[in-house]
Amino acid sequence: MGDPDMAQTGKQLFTTLDADGTLTVKIEDVAIPEPTGSQVLVKMEAAPINPSDLAILVGGADLDTAHYTPGKFVATVPEAVNAGSGARHGLKLPAGNEGAGTVIAAGDSDAAQALMGQRVSCVPGNAYSQYCVAEAAMCLPLGDHSAKDGASAFVNPMTALGFVESARMDGQDAILHTVGASNLGQMLTRICKEDGIGLVNIVRKAEQAELLTQMGASNVVNSSDDGFMQQLTSAIEDTGAFYGFDPIGGGRTVDTVFKAMEKVAVSQMTEYSRYGSNQLKRMFIYGRLDNSPTTLTPGYGFGWSLSGWLLFPFLQSAGTETVQRMRQRVRDTLTTTFASHYKAHVGLEEMLTKEAVTDYAGMKTGEKYLVTPWA
Amino acid sequence: MGDPDMAQTGKQLFTTLDADGTLTVKIEDVAIPEPTGSQVLVKMEAAPINPSDLAILVGGADLDTAHYTPGKFVATVPEAVNAGSGARHGLKLPAGNEGAGTVIAAGDSDAAQALMGQRVSCVPGNAYSQYCVAEAAMCLPLGDHSAKDGASAFVNPMTALGFVESARMDGQDAILHTVGASNLGQMLTRICKEDGIGLVNIVRKAEQAELLTQMGASNVVNSSDDGFMQQLTSAIEDTGAFYGFDPIGGGRTVDTVFKAMEKVAVSQMTEYSRYGSNQLKRMFIYGRLDNSPTTLTPGYGFGWSLSGWLLFPFLQSAGTETVQRMRQRVRDTLTTTFASHYKAHVGLEEMLTKEAVTDYAGMKTGEKYLVTPWA
Repeated sequence: MGDPDMAQTGKQLFTTLDADGTLTVKIEDVAIPEPTGSQVLVKMEAAPINPSDLAILVGGADLDTAHYTPGKFVATVPEAVNAGSGARHGLKLPAGNEGAGTVIAAGDSDAAQALMGQRVSCVPGNAYSQYCVAEAAMCLPLGDHSAKDGASAFVNPMTALGFVESARMDGQDAILHTVGASNLGQMLTRICKEDGIGLVNIVRKAEQAELLTQMGASNVVNSSDDGFMQQLTSAIEDTGAFYGFDPIGGGRTVDTVFKAMEKVAVSQMTEYSRYGSNQLKRMFIYGRLDNSPTTLTPGYGFGWSLSGWLLFPFLQSAGTETVQRMRQRVRDTLTTTFASHYKAHVGLEEMLTKEAVTDYAGMKTGEKYLVTPWA
Repeated sequence: MGDPDMAQTGKQLFTTLDADGTLTVKIEDVAIPEPTGSQVLVKMEAAPINPSDLAILVGGADLDTAHYTPGKFVATVPEAVNAGSGARHGLKLPAGNEGAGTVIAAGDSDAAQALMGQRVSCVPGNAYSQYCVAEAAMCLPLGDHSAKDGASAFVNPMTALGFVESARMDGQDAILHTVGASNLGQMLTRICKEDGIGLVNIVRKAEQAELLTQMGASNVVNSSDDGFMQQLTSAIEDTGAFYGFDPIGGGRTVDTVFKAMEKVAVSQMTEYSRYGSNQLKRMFIYGRLDNSPTTLTPGYGFGWSLSGWLLFPFLQSAGTETVQRMRQRVRDTLTTTFASHYKAHVGLEEMLTKEAVTDYAGMKTGEKYLVTPWA
């Protein structure tokens, strides 16, 4: 770091929740870290705001009553939510799972040195920064791709591929996804089409259904339609999808899916059972777009399972070989299968304005933000 | 069946739910069936009313407005429940999973013939009858034990043993049970003590806690106590029980347990994670004492799994050898480890009186009914 032309500090976002429920999110100047061993220093160019980043960024705070000043906002987290956040009280935390930029310094390891000067996708955990230290093994060299192309090369692509890997490991050849038109949902649609995996896509709007149908998806059902339950049941019957993923978490989405799955399973039984079907119905909650409670009603017997699903534990259980294969596929088809789209680009200070925060905190389908930390 | 001394018909209970929500439960005279092949004919002497029998017996009906006549009651099932019961509309179904009696006729198979004249525990599915046909392979010869001793030798004992088998298969050495003082809970307490398995018992009353403590249980927590959450957390910490079983189903029991498990897991983490702990927290719903929705709130990350658990699918997956070992253990310790207690004995007609129905439909802990079909 002896280069006299190089800045000694960079801007970075921090989020702090105090015990009294005060959430402070602000940009600070921090010393540029020095990479060692297998680490690289990445000058960040772009980082997406994923739903998985929002929990720590806005954390259930009341954004309407928040106080916004340049490069900072202070909000109050309601007691009900704050009480469950004790583990982070007083901690000043970075944010931003992933992003892309150029490697400008590297530790001693061969893997780190090999990345010097390259543009990479990385998973530093503090991607809302001008400079990040990242593990070389988690970096994906982007070649001629732009930072924007590579900013979202990890979380959504690996999650969508992870769903398909999970399904295969569990002997399934069809998947249900409750937010078909999301960025991730579109990737999943392309993957399933390429791999010949059955897919039931649930969407909420006619234009989302249209979008997926144009992409070649065949089992798209719209939860706003009158005949939704009938459509959903037919789609499950067509595909045999008794295995699904949901990032909403709260409310009755999973319950509705279980009911439709059971309806199909019962229709295929030859004899009545008071316990419902023995068809195993599995759903995985991989996000919390809705923080209200998950509601499961009786009515689908005992042959069901609902689990949390997180990318990093999954990758650990999947093993290095599988992960490498998944990453290679992302790299090979970064701008086609795994293309991401952004509604807006914001600088670090701009991302903490009321207009931006309230917009991206709404997590509307297809309205992802990209943070460009030098803007 | 040519024996001229033998009756040609026997009494049997039937339950019918019509599409309009009318539930009719009545005793009828039916021809005594003839066992063939591997079947035996059992003259039934005793059959318990288990929670698992109640769904089909009273099925969410409004029992206060039911019409009771000798050997029959007619009740209305509310639309919300009835709508989910379409698969049984119009079916006239038997009831009573298990019971005990004496084998008075047998099919040709050696296994069936070997049981002739013996008192057996059996799982006929129509145990609220004077005569049942049962599979020989599912019969447990009772030797000198009474029918009362053997009436509940299958469902509760095999379920309690099944919990321990499930836990072991999943690499766990501790279990949590949300209704510690139930008949099944007491069996589980004795099994865990014998096998050195850690057990957290949740109870609702001081006298239930006292009962289990006298049995030698060491981690009994009372949900009515002010310090319940603290007690529960300590008990989970002591035992390492991140694996539990719940027959309540509805409400927040499972949610509360997950919260306590996560509290313990987070306290053992060295670093804060926005995603919660990676400690896998597993709960199984094996009954529906509460038919209200299951509520799961956010707050325990994504390292959790909630599944339905049913005895028969479990036994199928466990394999013959395991099942035989479990059954042998039940037989060996029928009146100690697997002893059942009954609040009342009722005949077939008496079990359909308002007094009896409203009492056993309440499913109060420790107040199990025994049906004695010749009374």
